[in-house]
Amino acid sequence: MSETETGRPWTDPACPVARTVDLLGDKWSLLIVRDAFDGVTRFGQFQRNLGVAKNILADRLRNLVAIGVLRAEPASDGSRFHEYTLTEDGADLFDLVVSLRQWGRRHAFGPGESHSELVDSVTGEPIPELTYTTPDGRPVAADRTRVRKI
Amino acid sequence: MSETETGRPWTDPACPVARTVDLLGDKWSLLIVRDAFDGVTRFGQFQRNLGVAKNILADRLRNLVAIGVLRAEPASDGSRFHEYTLTEDGADLFDLVVSLRQWGRRHAFGPGESHSELVDSVTGEPIPELTYTTPDGRPVAADRTRVRKI
Repeated sequence: MSETETGRPWTDPACPVARTVDLLGDKWSLLIVRDAFDGVTRFGQFQRNLGVAKNILADRLRNLVAIGVLRAEPASDGSRFHEYTLTEDGADLFDLVVSLRQWGRRHAFGPGESHSELVDSVTGEPIPELTYTTPDGRPVAADRTRVRKI
Repeated sequence: MSETETGRPWTDPACPVARTVDLLGDKWSLLIVRDAFDGVTRFGQFQRNLGVAKNILADRLRNLVAIGVLRAEPASDGSRFHEYTLTEDGADLFDLVVSLRQWGRRHAFGPGESHSELVDSVTGEPIPELTYTTPDGRPVAADRTRVRKI
């Protein structure tokens, strides 16, 4: 891929962080993905949840479909609406949404402010703080890593 | 906190995902944070790396300092420049940068396209794929979770 699906050049072609950011690193795309994990499927639902202008929402949905994060299908009730659902690539953004959630919970709430919570869908129990670990179960400290450029 | 440090209202006050996105969910803020993890400290270095307009870069740096992700200090060489470094809250964005990196590597590169790599700073070995796990070592499947709203 020499450029994003929408024809813009990559900001930093060799950097996986930058490619993801180029594709969906904007406020509305990230919140649409969050809502899709919560089961939101319809344009009108996204619009009411996010309070975003319709033309911006339409643009971001179109982009998320173009980059393969969402699929758009005719509504199951036979109406003229579309339903947007996460593709497999889109569902793989779970970690990104979790990392946004965990940082926000730790650093963007005052004491006593209440917030939504990720819970086990079967037991209803809160999901404990998740940590990135290697396949053999070790956590990775940021200051023990560096990025090898090419 | 009834609003962001810059005085804008929260898009969705009870949602930790949305608060993080409100604070730093834009392309340039995310790439500045990435660069800060790579040891970039000076305005001019950020500017050359990112190719971003100076007024936008200045705005994003100011915001990242205001929200407590970066600190700005006089340069250690006594010059008139500032050095921007990650605060403790900023360093806690490591997971977010890792999640952007891992998704990008999996879904935004064609076969054979090369990319930068996160490696162990001591051994130089690539950091293996990281997985979010609970304190007792279990991975969490997205479709076994839901968000409990308040």
